[in-house]
Amino acid sequence: MEFCDFKRLLIGEPFPTSRESHERLDKLRGLAVFASDPISSNAYATEAIMHVLIVLGSGALAMTLPLGLAVAFLVLMVIFSYIQTILHYPDGGGAYTVSKDNLGEMPSLLAAAALLIDYVLTVSVSVAAGVRAVTSAFPEVFEYRVIIALLAILLVTWLNLRGVRESGTIFAIPTYAFIIGVLLTIIIGLIRYFGLFGVETLTMTQEVVAPVTSLTGFAYVWLLLRAFSGGCTALTGIEAISNGVKAFKKPEARNAAITMVAMGIIAMTLFIGITFLATHLSLVPNEAESILSQLTRKATGTGFLYYWVQIFTAGILFMAANTGYQDFPRLAYFLAHDNFLPRWLKNRGDRLVFSAGIVTLAIFSSLLIIIFRADEIAMLPLYALGVMLCFSLSQLGMFHLMGRIAHLKPGEMLQTKVTMVHYEKGSKWKRIMNAIGSVITFTVFVVLLLTKFKEGAWIIALLIPILVYIFYSIKKHYLNVSKTLSTRVLDTKKVAVVADVVVVPIADIHRGSLRAIQYAKRLSNDVRVITIATDIQDKDQFLERWNRFSEITDGLKLELVEYDYRDVLTPIVDYIKHVNQVEFPHELTTVVIPEFIPERFGAQYLHNQTATRLRALLRNYQDIVIIEVPFQIDSL
Amino acid sequence: MEFCDFKRLLIGEPFPTSRESHERLDKLRGLAVFASDPISSNAYATEAIMHVLIVLGSGALAMTLPLGLAVAFLVLMVIFSYIQTILHYPDGGGAYTVSKDNLGEMPSLLAAAALLIDYVLTVSVSVAAGVRAVTSAFPEVFEYRVIIALLAILLVTWLNLRGVRESGTIFAIPTYAFIIGVLLTIIIGLIRYFGLFGVETLTMTQEVVAPVTSLTGFAYVWLLLRAFSGGCTALTGIEAISNGVKAFKKPEARNAAITMVAMGIIAMTLFIGITFLATHLSLVPNEAESILSQLTRKATGTGFLYYWVQIFTAGILFMAANTGYQDFPRLAYFLAHDNFLPRWLKNRGDRLVFSAGIVTLAIFSSLLIIIFRADEIAMLPLYALGVMLCFSLSQLGMFHLMGRIAHLKPGEMLQTKVTMVHYEKGSKWKRIMNAIGSVITFTVFVVLLLTKFKEGAWIIALLIPILVYIFYSIKKHYLNVSKTLSTRVLDTKKVAVVADVVVVPIADIHRGSLRAIQYAKRLSNDVRVITIATDIQDKDQFLERWNRFSEITDGLKLELVEYDYRDVLTPIVDYIKHVNQVEFPHELTTVVIPEFIPERFGAQYLHNQTATRLRALLRNYQDIVIIEVPFQIDSL
Repeated sequence: MEFCDFKRLLIGEPFPTSRESHERLDKLRGLAVFASDPISSNAYATEAIMHVLIVLGSGALAMTLPLGLAVAFLVLMVIFSYIQTILHYPDGGGAYTVSKDNLGEMPSLLAAAALLIDYVLTVSVSVAAGVRAVTSAFPEVFEYRVIIALLAILLVTWLNLRGVRESGTIFAIPTYAFIIGVLLTIIIGLIRYFGLFGVETLTMTQEVVAPVTSLTGFAYVWLLLRAFSGGCTALTGIEAISNGVKAFKKPEARNAAITMVAMGIIAMTLFIGITFLATHLSLVPNEAESILSQLTRKATGTGFLYYWVQIFTAGILFMAANTGYQDFPRLAYFLAHDNFLPRWLKNRGDRLVFSAGIVTLAIFSSLLIIIFRADEIAMLPLYALGVMLCFSLSQLGMFHLMGRIAHLKPGEMLQTKVTMVHYEKGSKWKRIMNAIGSVITFTVFVVLLLTKFKEGAWIIALLIPILVYIFYSIKKHYLNVSKTLSTRVLDTKKVAVVADVVVVPIADIHRGSLRAIQYAKRLSNDVRVITIATDIQDKDQFLERWNRFSEITDGLKLELVEYDYRDVLTPIVDYIKHVNQVEFPHELTTVVIPEFIPERFGAQYLHNQTATRLRALLRNYQDIVIIEVPFQIDSL
Repeated sequence: MEFCDFKRLLIGEPFPTSRESHERLDKLRGLAVFASDPISSNAYATEAIMHVLIVLGSGALAMTLPLGLAVAFLVLMVIFSYIQTILHYPDGGGAYTVSKDNLGEMPSLLAAAALLIDYVLTVSVSVAAGVRAVTSAFPEVFEYRVIIALLAILLVTWLNLRGVRESGTIFAIPTYAFIIGVLLTIIIGLIRYFGLFGVETLTMTQEVVAPVTSLTGFAYVWLLLRAFSGGCTALTGIEAISNGVKAFKKPEARNAAITMVAMGIIAMTLFIGITFLATHLSLVPNEAESILSQLTRKATGTGFLYYWVQIFTAGILFMAANTGYQDFPRLAYFLAHDNFLPRWLKNRGDRLVFSAGIVTLAIFSSLLIIIFRADEIAMLPLYALGVMLCFSLSQLGMFHLMGRIAHLKPGEMLQTKVTMVHYEKGSKWKRIMNAIGSVITFTVFVVLLLTKFKEGAWIIALLIPILVYIFYSIKKHYLNVSKTLSTRVLDTKKVAVVADVVVVPIADIHRGSLRAIQYAKRLSNDVRVITIATDIQDKDQFLERWNRFSEITDGLKLELVEYDYRDVLTPIVDYIKHVNQVEFPHELTTVVIPEFIPERFGAQYLHNQTATRLRALLRNYQDIVIIEVPFQIDSL
């Protein structure tokens, strides 16, 4: 019971199931919970483009803005697509549900596998990036980065286990602080760049970096594609809301869609703002200082606002990890619901959150942190790949759905496997947008896969099919279970034929074993006590006691087996197998096992645990009923 | 069954218990198995003395030989004492048994705790030192030293699990090779030093090291004591044979005693030889090269013999770890036999070795390797302390025993708690030797404790009392058990009063739960089926099925509990508690639990494991009999 009190202190009072809809997020908290991942991308997305272009020298950085605009266009298209998804699939489920409904099982499982992996990576990468921000400030804690990252995961896990509303409130602070800080930076930067309101215009950086190489033709296009793909990290996390529609207050779909729009506007304003200023102030990426830091310093000086932006960059990166905590358990729920993942992922905990999914995510992301020693740079080649595959599948799905909707006449409705759709205007245009989006995201997926294959993308390319295989295996198991348990063609006569025999394996005659024998005598007239004698002394002593308690033991059959080895369970199991399979085939054989209950936790490890091991062995045979007769050891 | 085949391949065919006395060691193998620890001390004992003296400059190194002789004297005295121990306690047990028989329980447990800790350290320190020899030769594997050390422990563990005779044969090679190599070095060194047989005499080293400090009075004596204590590392492992008497062929005590004498002669010949030459060749300790290496090089040149000695130094250090494997499991056996350690440490495995003890030792020493990152220098301050405490206690015990023997007249006998002693000559002199030995070893213990307290000896000073406390707690538990189980004042009427009620908790109506219900109906007329409905749909569906199988369910009491939380086990346990404690107090309540048996290993983790968790919860109550009715899931 002490454990319960401790759990209550940690997690809080349990909520009744009926309270479920109260534990929902409003739009303000929803934005903080779901949007910290895409918004935090602004900390590095522009830089990711420039980082590729710089090999052609600082002159080529001028391409950053067009590429950034292309990324922004793609983002808007994806967001548009997801708004459609939310409105058409108000029960949530994102890419998985859309693919399942429109493309079939296999594509939906591909999407699910890619997303699950990506959510785990979201947590590991974001936490590691946040820790890097911390260790940059305090280099003396660098050697403890793995521990710090694990503690951060523990903290986020704990907050999530306490419940979604509470975590929403806590997570809102750094997200909004980051948005405000960067927005102010951009506004000040623009004012000073254009010399508005009479301020002096900013002088441009004169730094010139010589090209490392010069490229033409396909090589040049490939480089642009790589730069574009780099910028596409801005897209990670966009799909979060579509999985989590059910986490919003009613009307869920409407609130989720509005939040999605707000997220898109905010994220793209920051992205374009940063990219515009970075290009026009001629910033050059360098190892020591991030573009965002250079930009803030240049636009606002190294003052209060600068530190504000730096601190909340670290803060929102930690919070971005939380997006994984929102999505992973929900997607796992959908998969478990369809029998592709273990059923316990469907269970809601004391606080109505998917506790098992949260803990599973924490374990996997902690493992990644340990394996990669909290180095997010090493993890990045694995990241974003899965998301692109999903976007592509999800938009392909929406393309298919829009095709069906386009055939509807005004007022007509259509019931798909999962949802109900109505006639709507402009479905043809929406369909074209989906097609373009799908092709572009698929291209980015291929580019990412090829350019990062060696550095780690191969792991993902390997993991996704393995996961899909696991999904199918799990489904197969559940099919087995439900078919075997099915009562459809059940002959009630054959439910249980119980053999009139009871076997009682004991090591010695004492209060515990006598109790078991006494219990067994109630069940059958054919009680067989089996004991293994490993030396002659044991045997004599046993027989002496057996005869002493003739009041109990009279009329029972005693199997006293002399055995010259130490694995006493083997002859016991052999005997029971013989009774079950030879003497009473196709009937249930009952075995009564006396069991110590030690006076305190842990004390069982002082014993040989023969009873526990025997039970484990007997469980391999389907027709053996095991009865544990407990005997409590008193504390003196 | 596959596991069994694998185990057989790894460990070998199981031996019958009756074969036990065949699995004994002859003297040649016994020496190799038990003496590798003390003999391997020669790799560093002389150096340990010189290392302290050098602060007074190279002139002070002349004190090495007298101090070495003092150590040798102490070693001979301890060996003498242990020969007495072996002859008077032919069943083995060493310091633990001697202290128990002569000084009482508490001193014997102190000795046991100290020894157990030391045996674990023997393994870790020896393996780490052996790995250092390897990484000195191949610096490129230095970063894998922890892994190499763990693999070495795994190897020694595996050899020991295969059985004592086999390991004896394998371990003999490096031990004897080391002895021969060092002996040859010493002989050649002496011949060349004295210019015997007309060889040219060796020139002495002219290296002079200036004193770091100069000491007088108590400080000087303290330094000599520290140097002496350093040399006392030569004593570690001496007690090994006394614990392992039973591992020898018959007559055990005689063979063990002869092996002990041989060990003493060999170890001290090497020690004095090395110390004499190191002093007279004016060797000076330095970080880069060990004294033994310098000595070998000087005496024999850097040729075949030099590499022979170096290689088998590493070899015998690995083998020294094996001494821990001989002693730890045996001492653990003695303690378990007296109920101070878990009983399973008494079990012999398939090959008649104390498998559980071997594995326990491997786990603890691996942990030390991991914690100290295979750095034996960091572990040394913890080492040798426990051994000295034991020597002191053991000799004090023999002092006491000799006092009782001194009172016997010729032909008289005396039965102590553990052994039988006879009149013997010279018991007074033996007694005086024991007294001196006890005082000196206790002094060394105190010096070691004080000089190394900060560097780690405090850990041992803390661990020993903690272990003693654990010993007592375990004994208390076993006393509880035997008193509670005792049949001495048993009223056979009260052995088991079984309540005429059966509770069947089920989640749903399917073949598995119907089978459990059917089984329950055989046991009582008062069968109560309890199920928890978490929503209204579940409830209706359940009732529909319940009524459909009225052939089985008719006449049973159905407890359908509506529950607004997700922890469905709580109301079930509450109900069963109510039946057990309120309706049928002081009687056995029977609970029938339907249990899936999945079609393959691991598949159970796909389920909620409600049955397993329910059983675990119910086990806290002493009057509840649990019946598991299995239902096998077929593979389709």
